Amino acid sequence: MRHNLRVNGARLQSRLERLAEAGARPDGGVNRLALTDADRDGRDLVVGWMRDLGLAVAIDAVGNVVGLRAGREDGPPVMMGSHIDTVLTGGRYDGALGVMAGLEVIETLAEAGCVTRRPLAVAFFTNEEGARFQPDMFGSLVFTGQLPLAAALATVGVDGATAGEELRRIGYAGDAAVGRPEVHAYVELHVEQGPTLEAEGFVIGAVEGVQGISWTELTISGQANHAGTTPMRMRHDAGYVAAEIATFARRLAGEIGGHQVATVGALTLTPNLVNVVPERAVMTVDLRNTDNAALKDAERRLTAFAAATAAAEGVTLESRTLARFDPVPFAAPLVARVEAIARELDLAVKRLPSGAGHDAQMLAAVCPACMIFVPSAGGVSHNIAEYTASDLCAAGADVLLRLVTELAE
Amino acid sequence: MRHNLRVNGARLQSRLERLAEAGARPDGGVNRLALTDADRDGRDLVVGWMRDLGLAVAIDAVGNVVGLRAGREDGPPVMMGSHIDTVLTGGRYDGALGVMAGLEVIETLAEAGCVTRRPLAVAFFTNEEGARFQPDMFGSLVFTGQLPLAAALATVGVDGATAGEELRRIGYAGDAAVGRPEVHAYVELHVEQGPTLEAEGFVIGAVEGVQGISWTELTISGQANHAGTTPMRMRHDAGYVAAEIATFARRLAGEIGGHQVATVGALTLTPNLVNVVPERAVMTVDLRNTDNAALKDAERRLTAFAAATAAAEGVTLESRTLARFDPVPFAAPLVARVEAIARELDLAVKRLPSGAGHDAQMLAAVCPACMIFVPSAGGVSHNIAEYTASDLCAAGADVLLRLVTELAE
Repeated sequence: MRHNLRVNGARLQSRLERLAEAGARPDGGVNRLALTDADRDGRDLVVGWMRDLGLAVAIDAVGNVVGLRAGREDGPPVMMGSHIDTVLTGGRYDGALGVMAGLEVIETLAEAGCVTRRPLAVAFFTNEEGARFQPDMFGSLVFTGQLPLAAALATVGVDGATAGEELRRIGYAGDAAVGRPEVHAYVELHVEQGPTLEAEGFVIGAVEGVQGISWTELTISGQANHAGTTPMRMRHDAGYVAAEIATFARRLAGEIGGHQVATVGALTLTPNLVNVVPERAVMTVDLRNTDNAALKDAERRLTAFAAATAAAEGVTLESRTLARFDPVPFAAPLVARVEAIARELDLAVKRLPSGAGHDAQMLAAVCPACMIFVPSAGGVSHNIAEYTASDLCAAGADVLLRLVTELAE
Repeated sequence: MRHNLRVNGARLQSRLERLAEAGARPDGGVNRLALTDADRDGRDLVVGWMRDLGLAVAIDAVGNVVGLRAGREDGPPVMMGSHIDTVLTGGRYDGALGVMAGLEVIETLAEAGCVTRRPLAVAFFTNEEGARFQPDMFGSLVFTGQLPLAAALATVGVDGATAGEELRRIGYAGDAAVGRPEVHAYVELHVEQGPTLEAEGFVIGAVEGVQGISWTELTISGQANHAGTTPMRMRHDAGYVAAEIATFARRLAGEIGGHQVATVGALTLTPNLVNVVPERAVMTVDLRNTDNAALKDAERRLTAFAAATAAAEGVTLESRTLARFDPVPFAAPLVARVEAIARELDLAVKRLPSGAGHDAQMLAAVCPACMIFVPSAGGVSHNIAEYTASDLCAAGADVLLRLVTELAE
């Protein structure tokens, strides 16, 4: 089936705005933490729209919601989706766009009288953000069999609430089979949450994969000494070693190149006084790369440098892994189609990795999956100021529409 | 007058121990903050010892105490001294040693029937530490005409008390003329408060002068960004710039050499999270040198490096001077005599600067002044574990005895 259909950008925008009323903050942002009353309000709204569009709604035991549109044939659907929970100071686009665009694709096809060969589905997964319950993305983890249902339900949130109880309380502990339907392919439209597309003048990002993440905490223990009376050669300066590691991390990212990023985001000195040589430094190193071999190389080189620098200064070094996830590559044919479709639609497109985690990386374990990015104004996300202009949202939804209809034929 | 007198080390030790009872902490340390009841108890004890030794005690309006022993002739005395106030978690030696050694020198001479040509004096100056009232060393500042008496008396302490009122309350607002007597020369025995003498096997430090101090606070403002989604080239990382400056400070000390020291003691990042590029870094740089030209060179080079690094990263840099004191050289002939006397006494001696401030640097404005250092175990000071073995205290007091009797002839 070839068509020249385009989504209705105004209708997409309208749904985004109405969804933003669920958990609306006085400052214009959105607080729709997972499984709160605000999340229930948002779920009710989306489920209502699904039913209005004639979708068969299934809710599983962890609260994942799938709206199914029958195809000309039975079989695993092509799934669109994302999540509708937000962080405490969230915006209107992160997650919501992928779900609202899925509904818009369905409505566009319905208006045009198009029925695809395979079924289509729009899904939203529970607790993607992880702002209330850890781990993040537990809905899609359970959906794809990567986290036991019982473990997710037993999760205690930052506010002391239990996920299973909250699901029942808000009426979203469903009875649909977990991990059903089987999915033919999964496509997630999402805001970039970074500055690259906007800064470089692109409208569409063809997401090659999700970066692998390596988070390490280094604790450096030296000796507190008087900053005036201790000659340089007698120092065991934990802060100096931390600073050397931080500057090395920057150099390392440059040397490895590609999509390698390296960040020292946190650094705390003790006693943190102007005239005392720091006794202790606790720092974090965040390394990410789409290429796992390169990421491992970065980890190895950072570890070696830190050990050598600590030894030279006569300080001790303890290292603790805070997080480690391998990169998730998306299905290469799908990435290529995102790129090609964007070009067909005359939309400036760039291949790039995702620096953040998404439900699509979990779905990639069970089916071909990919993502489409649209620009985030100023690269801002997880912030009440999060913004993507409505024509950009519509452009992303147009790519989604084409790709999904292709995949469903 | 040549003599082979030696001090009585046990008696010196005994006075140090008795003085440590004034403000004794349960943990073995001393809390004798300036002008507290504990300070009064210490003062009463020392004044009592001065009177027992036949000294004429004079107390001025800022509470400086001078005990005078007549010489064979009238005229400005040779003064020994230091301070008896401590920090909150102080030890038994910092300050106390110089005063107790002064009393010990007097008693040794008295026992031997020696009367010097010039008078001798033992002094202790109010509020050297500055732990309760700022500025530190305000007693010797007033004594040497470098701070108006009224300003010192009006000082409000960290606990809200006023110095002038506290002086009256503890009975140490005296009526002796401020800045009297004129001083012929001033010699202060003190613990090193650093590791050099002990680490290198020396018993006596011939202190060449007090380092100049330059304290700068740098505030670096960049842009908070997602550590995963922000490419390295788009970052404005305040923490990275701070780390570059900290490593440069270390290199700078090495390049300038001599007595140059450089310390980044405090560094605070905002928001200080593992996955956020730091938006803001506030750091301190402590530069010290005995050579003012070299110190100015260090300041200039650090400022230039910080500005260039900030500009390259696209962050802004604000700089604020927290403190700036020129170096104070001690009288070269006196430093040479400390060194020579130590050799005569077969005590291993090293010339070194003082990295900390001392009353002697104030006295140096009005008379030839110098200091004698004895080792601090482990370089530890301003700490309840502060320790200098009694034979080392006695060795320092022996040098003091010889130098003072020479100067008084």
